[in-house]
Amino acid sequence: MFRKLLTFDEAKALIQQTLQPKPLGTQEIPLLDAYNRVLSQDAISNLDIPPFNRSTVDGYAVKAEDTFGADENNPVKLKVCGFVAIGELPKITIQEGKAAEIVTGAPIPQGANAVVMVEDTNREGATLTIYSSATPNENVQKKGSDIKNGETILKAGRALGSREIGVLAAFGKAKVTVFLVPTAAVVSTGGEIIEPGKKLLPGKIYDINAYSLCTAVRECGGKPIYAGVVPDEKKQLRKELDKALASADILLTSGGVSVGPKDLIPQTVDSLGKPGVFISGIAVKPGKPATVALIGKKPVFSFPGHPTSALMIFHLLARPVIQVMAGKPAKDMPSVKAYAAGRMFSAKGRRTFVTVTLSMNEKSKHLVAEAVETGASGAITTLAKADGFLEIPENEQFVDAGEEVTVWLLKESL
Amino acid sequence: MFRKLLTFDEAKALIQQTLQPKPLGTQEIPLLDAYNRVLSQDAISNLDIPPFNRSTVDGYAVKAEDTFGADENNPVKLKVCGFVAIGELPKITIQEGKAAEIVTGAPIPQGANAVVMVEDTNREGATLTIYSSATPNENVQKKGSDIKNGETILKAGRALGSREIGVLAAFGKAKVTVFLVPTAAVVSTGGEIIEPGKKLLPGKIYDINAYSLCTAVRECGGKPIYAGVVPDEKKQLRKELDKALASADILLTSGGVSVGPKDLIPQTVDSLGKPGVFISGIAVKPGKPATVALIGKKPVFSFPGHPTSALMIFHLLARPVIQVMAGKPAKDMPSVKAYAAGRMFSAKGRRTFVTVTLSMNEKSKHLVAEAVETGASGAITTLAKADGFLEIPENEQFVDAGEEVTVWLLKESL
Repeated sequence: MFRKLLTFDEAKALIQQTLQPKPLGTQEIPLLDAYNRVLSQDAISNLDIPPFNRSTVDGYAVKAEDTFGADENNPVKLKVCGFVAIGELPKITIQEGKAAEIVTGAPIPQGANAVVMVEDTNREGATLTIYSSATPNENVQKKGSDIKNGETILKAGRALGSREIGVLAAFGKAKVTVFLVPTAAVVSTGGEIIEPGKKLLPGKIYDINAYSLCTAVRECGGKPIYAGVVPDEKKQLRKELDKALASADILLTSGGVSVGPKDLIPQTVDSLGKPGVFISGIAVKPGKPATVALIGKKPVFSFPGHPTSALMIFHLLARPVIQVMAGKPAKDMPSVKAYAAGRMFSAKGRRTFVTVTLSMNEKSKHLVAEAVETGASGAITTLAKADGFLEIPENEQFVDAGEEVTVWLLKESL
Repeated sequence: MFRKLLTFDEAKALIQQTLQPKPLGTQEIPLLDAYNRVLSQDAISNLDIPPFNRSTVDGYAVKAEDTFGADENNPVKLKVCGFVAIGELPKITIQEGKAAEIVTGAPIPQGANAVVMVEDTNREGATLTIYSSATPNENVQKKGSDIKNGETILKAGRALGSREIGVLAAFGKAKVTVFLVPTAAVVSTGGEIIEPGKKLLPGKIYDINAYSLCTAVRECGGKPIYAGVVPDEKKQLRKELDKALASADILLTSGGVSVGPKDLIPQTVDSLGKPGVFISGIAVKPGKPATVALIGKKPVFSFPGHPTSALMIFHLLARPVIQVMAGKPAKDMPSVKAYAAGRMFSAKGRRTFVTVTLSMNEKSKHLVAEAVETGASGAITTLAKADGFLEIPENEQFVDAGEEVTVWLLKESL
């Protein structure tokens, strides 16, 4: 089992190389339920759109040639031979000298090749006076001019929002084939941890991580399977982790990764199957004991027990893997630029992530990032306050007050 | 019934004043299912956190007084009288001259008031040598120091993400009271429109708007009720709109708002109940015929039939109302700064919204906004291409090439 401390960049590269995440499969679902899902194959048009030549204005369908030379002083007179309604094929054919009333979106009748806008005409009974000459195809949207049969409409890998779902509907598709949503079983460990909803016993505290991590899984496009708090007794821990892993595509654990006698996670995860643990310790702060394994084809991420650290390491390491398994491009966390409120120090030789709160300096209209004192304020205050975190590289000692920094957001937007 | 064209700002103000949107009610749900829901009341702590004085390090619980003056040259020797495990109340009491082994997170035993880090000690059997003096409360996190019983943890109106759900879990709450999700029935009208999934008849086209608007409702925190395509025959239209409105908190329609003979929406919506239509026409382009009504206590928004226009007017007028009904602060659409690729003209006297695509200029690293030619390219191409839209005020003729513009995004992020 691996015990060397990797650098953060080595760890990220090794995760990519070892896990080689990819989408899990596809399924066909109703298009109306496909919000936030990811297209698994190129969507190809099976129609010409529009499916027929249609009028883009209210007016009169004519032979353009019949109107040539018409202007305010030399109007042309045509005979109205019918009305073309929207939503049905016109039964009339336009002969020389004739016109048909037509509304926006209605099919151009046979024989006609242009539409004169109603504003450029005057009608008295069946007599239409036209004050403007039309060119062929004027005010006509040609069949297939928007999209042609066989054209690619949307590329595989596109996440489906209101625009994409609207576009797919235009082709009459009430179903769509998308990538499967990866499931992640989420387990908390620790002898002092009690599940929310149960009675708090003396000496214990309520679990936070299974709840926050389940929600973080949703935030990046996965489906969480809450597996609660498992005891840190070796045999039972192994049994529960095995069960949780069997129930999902990914396993996420928190707690029990340090080097104390009760920190059974690395060895227990490693015992679940081959190839086993391949990262056990990363030169980062916080999150140094973070452990990553591959059991069969399933990734297992084990985070430290501190709630904000667990969430941070989740975002840094697990989020890109879950996104790719969901068929999405691995996208950076949302970030903002801000100015450091004070000097923030790094941990020697470790990539350091500093939890910060963001506030707007009303005078300068700049965002200001202030470090959250993790130690002093405690786990819950830190978690409630932390808007995000900034990064200090291994080879830098500190970020100085007033320096511009990138803050990675622990929420989708500010 | 109202037929005066309002300015865009007048329309927004009148919507606010007439609809007076507010949350619809509350419900208690499992905390694990509360992602993206909105807290309906302040969450108040019912616990001290931590619930007991706890050690923040691995080491030895001592009376600080016993270590005073200890350093490398003058170590102090204490007798180890036991071990304090995590997750249970210690049964031992620390007497003068005694110490107990303790792990991070374990409760401080009676009699002790500090913890000496294991790194500052040496142990041989029951004899502990301490090389550093401890001050009272050193390495001790006091009961209630993170959050006190009765303190406000999160304010009403807060949307629940991974951090918030984690914070609430810390108080043992497996359930949470949140605002109800407003439901919006979505109806398309138009004689030429066929529902996706049905056979395309000659002269018809597939509906886009009910699908894109249903998804847009989800995007801003509501729950859509797809009500499909309704015929534009007066009596049946009224019946179907009445039914759709009864099924939801909000009604959204598209198509049938212009002034043609088949544009029955304004009068039919107005006939559904009091106070009826209060906006019928806004000095904007596109979207001029947009119609807004209040029927009983339910808002009704009627958009034009053009898919991109319908979505744009939805975002501008309906989205803020749905957000507030969902208990969220009415938030602007996400936006980015970009530079206009070319001159874009406004429609005289109307607030003009120009659909644009965004691309990155690789040289300048600036986003460039290019107008999508709505007329030429057709409805689906426009919808697929449009990343967002920019605004030209009523009193300006154009936005010039190279001018910095704000682009409101038709998706959650770029």
